[in-house]
Amino acid sequence: MELKPLILKKNEERRLRAGHLWVYSNEVDTAETPLTGFTPGELVEVRERGGRPVGTGYVNPHSLICARLLSRDAAHPVSRSLILHRVNQALALRERLSDAPFYRLVFGEADLLPGLVVDRYGDHLVVQITTAGMETLRDDILDALDKVVAPLGILLRNDSSARELEGLPKSVEVARGTVPDEAELVEHGTRFRVPLAAGQKTGWFYDQSDNRGRLLRYAAGARVLDVFSYVGAWGIQAARFGASDVLCIDASERALQHAAANAALNDVHIETLQADAFDALKALRAEGRDFDVVVVDPPAFIKRRKDHRAGLDAYRRLNQAAMQLLGKDGILISCSCSHHLGDHELLGMMNLAARHVDRNLQVIETGGQAWDHPIHPAIPETRYLKAIFARVFM
Amino acid sequence: MELKPLILKKNEERRLRAGHLWVYSNEVDTAETPLTGFTPGELVEVRERGGRPVGTGYVNPHSLICARLLSRDAAHPVSRSLILHRVNQALALRERLSDAPFYRLVFGEADLLPGLVVDRYGDHLVVQITTAGMETLRDDILDALDKVVAPLGILLRNDSSARELEGLPKSVEVARGTVPDEAELVEHGTRFRVPLAAGQKTGWFYDQSDNRGRLLRYAAGARVLDVFSYVGAWGIQAARFGASDVLCIDASERALQHAAANAALNDVHIETLQADAFDALKALRAEGRDFDVVVVDPPAFIKRRKDHRAGLDAYRRLNQAAMQLLGKDGILISCSCSHHLGDHELLGMMNLAARHVDRNLQVIETGGQAWDHPIHPAIPETRYLKAIFARVFM
Repeated sequence: MELKPLILKKNEERRLRAGHLWVYSNEVDTAETPLTGFTPGELVEVRERGGRPVGTGYVNPHSLICARLLSRDAAHPVSRSLILHRVNQALALRERLSDAPFYRLVFGEADLLPGLVVDRYGDHLVVQITTAGMETLRDDILDALDKVVAPLGILLRNDSSARELEGLPKSVEVARGTVPDEAELVEHGTRFRVPLAAGQKTGWFYDQSDNRGRLLRYAAGARVLDVFSYVGAWGIQAARFGASDVLCIDASERALQHAAANAALNDVHIETLQADAFDALKALRAEGRDFDVVVVDPPAFIKRRKDHRAGLDAYRRLNQAAMQLLGKDGILISCSCSHHLGDHELLGMMNLAARHVDRNLQVIETGGQAWDHPIHPAIPETRYLKAIFARVFM
Repeated sequence: MELKPLILKKNEERRLRAGHLWVYSNEVDTAETPLTGFTPGELVEVRERGGRPVGTGYVNPHSLICARLLSRDAAHPVSRSLILHRVNQALALRERLSDAPFYRLVFGEADLLPGLVVDRYGDHLVVQITTAGMETLRDDILDALDKVVAPLGILLRNDSSARELEGLPKSVEVARGTVPDEAELVEHGTRFRVPLAAGQKTGWFYDQSDNRGRLLRYAAGARVLDVFSYVGAWGIQAARFGASDVLCIDASERALQHAAANAALNDVHIETLQADAFDALKALRAEGRDFDVVVVDPPAFIKRRKDHRAGLDAYRRLNQAAMQLLGKDGILISCSCSHHLGDHELLGMMNLAARHVDRNLQVIETGGQAWDHPIHPAIPETRYLKAIFARVFM
């Protein structure tokens, strides 16, 4: 099948040749190939101005990122078998590096499947499709997952805000087999039951698993505060690693009920506090409470570039409040999942916060997103998670 | 005791107020306080132009970095007791985070002891003094280490090139007690015997310990190549973690003898090859050899900013040659200890190398220097080590 061409302006193929997969709408030679001539999700061959093919992918004329490459190999254009090959490659990495079936199986661009995320909970998969192009390929994707993983069920969590930008409707539905309300997973020997259809994102944040594993070094005998705890991942891991006391704070009563159930599942004790994080930190300080380890793992405060200033200030206030709850010599684990906040900026902000409250800071470790969320080296947007482990002392 | 003032030009206190510890010679108000008026290593009070104290530290009029702060607290200027306090603080972090006495005990600026490095090998310490100021405080430092750690011996490895910039002589000498030729240490359950007076730097590279721990995920059943192996740290760790074959390459026959002895100490088998790394990689490729995991952990190719271009090219050639020794789906662990090469640059270089040899790259993990080499958040120079774990596939 001959694909329609999408022709780029002069030199606009360079970023793609260097490995990136995105075409922005202002890079298209719209005199030659008007974007209005494409339907959302249509497959295309992306070409240099001179006609030389760059690769095949899909278009969304209504999106700022108007096309994404799926293949740069003319012998293997977009097809059912290419999707199958990509899913097989993704699984090969996970099976090589993990002996338990709990991980992100497909991480979009970094697995050369832009617009697709798949999380694996043993025999169940939770899928997020975020672009019109991947929506068009939906059946091929589900078939490939069925064939490669043979799951008992696949849940489509197609309710992310990214779909709005692509003009796609939101929905949550079981696409194949059956899917339970909750799935159980094991992380560093700790068991968690998480809500799939009703939880945040796909139900669990696999991206922090390596960073939570690092808690082992800090948790023994420590009084640990877990801010934005969701279902208790950090706090319960800390308790299993030997923390003497754990307090989980979250705004959602429901998340905290899951946290309490997860603590029971692992025979450990935690306290929970339903509150706004900023209010809670203030109140704890007023009560004279202090901790040996504080984890702040907030939602992205900088979702878009224009939120940068306000978001950075929110991070600073949060980190400063967290530092003030540490004793004379404590550990702050400060996370950010905002791609728009670089790790040097995060560190600079923490330094500023420490100077404000007259503490010394030593960065002991800097973690990124876990192994199953690989970074595509030519696509900075695939790198987003930072976790800075710092000593805060007088 | 009243200290002589060192007065800064207008606004030049800002970086120091933000937490940095260095004064560059062009930041000094030499009309008020000519640098020629100081002797190397002399203690001073650093002041803003208006006279407000910034802190106390030491001067070297012959160095580009002409002064370094030891204290910003007027109540606790440089003194024997301040040095003792700093060493105690440094030890507190290490004892909190490690249950075995094998670590970098003092990491210069990051432990607020600029110009001092101390590595601990159980009952023996190896000390590097790199500035005239710390040389002046040498006896206080040795006394503090004696008091806090009570070692059997302290070796001064004062043979680093940094001493030349400070006009200090080079020497290696036992300063306290007795020090054996070799020390034994344990890392992730693996034993290593390393040469103290005759080895590279202080004898061992503790800065890679966390990264070597990450090998566990990759080593099982793998054929591993360790390039620039020195005494076999990566290769032997891989063998203990279950690698099927390990080849260590180093230019030093002596280092490889230590590697072989260390393998025997742990009852594992490795091969060694004495050769220039670039030549060896070329020869292995010509022989058609391939590996599942290749570790390249070279010495700094970019020691000074002006080496940047040539150094970056050397990194690229090395990484490209390493990628060509991987099979269809392998793991490259690429390290750089050049502060002047940022992690984004290192990643960009690896991407370029991958494009050159037409491979796909996924970054699985990015490690920095180990926990006992903390980063001072206001001093970018304290952040230097990068280890990128990447999948290289067709």
